[in-house]
Amino acid sequence: MTTATGHTTAIRAGKAIGTDVYDSTGKKLGEVKDIVLEKTSNNILFAVVSFGGVLGVGEKYHPVPWSELDYDPKVGGYVVSFTADRLKDAPSDSIEALTKDDGRAFRDRAFAHYGTKPYWH
Amino acid sequence: MTTATGHTTAIRAGKAIGTDVYDSTGKKLGEVKDIVLEKTSNNILFAVVSFGGVLGVGEKYHPVPWSELDYDPKVGGYVVSFTADRLKDAPSDSIEALTKDDGRAFRDRAFAHYGTKPYWH
Repeated sequence: MTTATGHTTAIRAGKAIGTDVYDSTGKKLGEVKDIVLEKTSNNILFAVVSFGGVLGVGEKYHPVPWSELDYDPKVGGYVVSFTADRLKDAPSDSIEALTKDDGRAFRDRAFAHYGTKPYWH
Repeated sequence: MTTATGHTTAIRAGKAIGTDVYDSTGKKLGEVKDIVLEKTSNNILFAVVSFGGVLGVGEKYHPVPWSELDYDPKVGGYVVSFTADRLKDAPSDSIEALTKDDGRAFRDRAFAHYGTKPYWH
């Protein structure tokens, strides 16, 4: 099904990975590095989005709720509803750290930071 | 978190893709070709597992419920609870067809075929 905005509802993870991410002003923020899934449930834990590489600061890996990424066919990438500023104090770490243990500590912090409604309640 | 059987609960889609799949007797069936996600919910629609390439029959792409894939660190791959025989009349098509529309028709057929409890009820 294609929604009214042209989004498709079935998305291949292998295609989402590597897709660029833009902020709400159209500025490129980074790209989807991976998508972390829960094995003990049927849920998407979070997307891992790389941001940064600006002013000598290295690339950072941020857990971002899947529902925050809206694919916009016009820009050919995902658009998030926040601006780059919102990332300054956002949760971030290496991908290994993000997926350590069950990843839920980072999930909880990310959903709280972006004000996203938890899917697990 | 690592479960009692050694499984981790947070899984990177990018690592799951390309992982071999074995049947319950230890026979290699194929590999995870992709994982299809729902964009309008937080759910994993199904894994796409390639099976076949046997006796001149081409590779087939099967939608398989995510919960049917159990990672076994001893074999270094996913183990399904069924045997290769179970695949003979299992739903299959091209990846493009599997993800056409919202993919739910294939999801419903796959869950019914493998007797998997639906996650959407």
